[in-house]
Amino acid sequence: MTATLVLLRHGESVWNAENLFTGWVDVPLSEKGVVEAKRGGELLREAKLLPDVVHTSLLRRAISTANLALDGCDRHWIDVRRDWRLNERHYGALQGKDKKQTLEAYGEEQFMLWRRSYDTPPPAIELGSTYSQDEDPRYAGLGSDLPRTECLKDVVARLLPYWEKAIVPDLRSGKTVLVAAHGNSLRALVKHLDGVSDEAIAGLNIPTGIPLRYDLDEDLKPVTAGGTYLDPEAAAGAIKAVANQGR
Amino acid sequence: MTATLVLLRHGESVWNAENLFTGWVDVPLSEKGVVEAKRGGELLREAKLLPDVVHTSLLRRAISTANLALDGCDRHWIDVRRDWRLNERHYGALQGKDKKQTLEAYGEEQFMLWRRSYDTPPPAIELGSTYSQDEDPRYAGLGSDLPRTECLKDVVARLLPYWEKAIVPDLRSGKTVLVAAHGNSLRALVKHLDGVSDEAIAGLNIPTGIPLRYDLDEDLKPVTAGGTYLDPEAAAGAIKAVANQGR
Repeated sequence: MTATLVLLRHGESVWNAENLFTGWVDVPLSEKGVVEAKRGGELLREAKLLPDVVHTSLLRRAISTANLALDGCDRHWIDVRRDWRLNERHYGALQGKDKKQTLEAYGEEQFMLWRRSYDTPPPAIELGSTYSQDEDPRYAGLGSDLPRTECLKDVVARLLPYWEKAIVPDLRSGKTVLVAAHGNSLRALVKHLDGVSDEAIAGLNIPTGIPLRYDLDEDLKPVTAGGTYLDPEAAAGAIKAVANQGR
Repeated sequence: MTATLVLLRHGESVWNAENLFTGWVDVPLSEKGVVEAKRGGELLREAKLLPDVVHTSLLRRAISTANLALDGCDRHWIDVRRDWRLNERHYGALQGKDKKQTLEAYGEEQFMLWRRSYDTPPPAIELGSTYSQDEDPRYAGLGSDLPRTECLKDVVARLLPYWEKAIVPDLRSGKTVLVAAHGNSLRALVKHLDGVSDEAIAGLNIPTGIPLRYDLDEDLKPVTAGGTYLDPEAAAGAIKAVANQGR
């Protein structure tokens, strides 16, 4: 038995386009992001890689990406599961801040530490502030699980229980599973799947809107390490662009 | 305890606009239908009537309507349940046919019998024909439940098990439940809720894109018979227009 998992990072959001730290702020896709999501659906359709169930975060940019991509491959009608554990990394007090200004204010070293270190979170966001989520009804049940900032290590820790509890059962039941989520929640998942080290994960980028296919063996280990992008050339080009974000 | 149920009929589809019998054919919303769905979301937001869970059919026009309306009232992240039992009435061999031509070919009496009688279905659709669903993967598990035509009585019969099994438990748990579906599946539900007779249901039309709120008592009977439209004036105007469809 092999299981088929498809990862899809949401298309460009309006804050990606404006170069702001987003995290858990629930901004919509940009026009470019909508095009990317539709292209993702076309790639799924062309590859006849048709999901039976979709898992998304609770954030609009991942949900819209899933809706558009699934509509594009005639799979709008499949089962839907959503969970905050697939959300983007919480960017703490940096949420809503300009990436370039943050780089200039704090310097390259601190900036890259917040962006790419495995275990150093940004400063925690102040409760009740504009871009905090402590009064958002969708997280009302979280209690002390509600993050005020996260590093990638934190994302791995809160993602894996959902992987085990919700995604693995779908894979075990033979379903083709689509996970529509975010740069860092998908990096966390890829880190787990491919056994990427805490150091090497810093250099791993996932491009937007290009489905990444993993065929998994009986132990849910990737048959091909790193999976396979449905449009490998576009993925290679986009990975470079992501690495230069904020410059 | 009262429970809150919100019914939303999908906005205009491209086949509504072209005056074709649609049934289970999976056509998209027209541009007007997209506007209607967004307006439905605005009405929910203005009324602060915020769903905790959405139930949809397996058809794109209901799914898109739900997605657009929920996005518009910031509830895109709620739980989603979908089931074929919320689908539009299967229109049998009439699916894909022009309503005006059908009226001319068969005469007023037969036409209205197929459209409005409670227990006379249109002729069954031929398996394997262009607008039949026997090879559609979303219905692969249905076996002999897959309809080849339906009258409203058939819709009531296949809808009620889903009402009892899936919607009632959500209502009992205190959730505000949105059902995004179709003219006839919603008429079937309203017939059950309000105890409308087999004769009187023929005269009951539900307008598109205007949320219909039902507050239900402990026995899940409507506190106000017929519920309350969030935009009563628009609803009254639209109900007249629906009654004249196909003329």
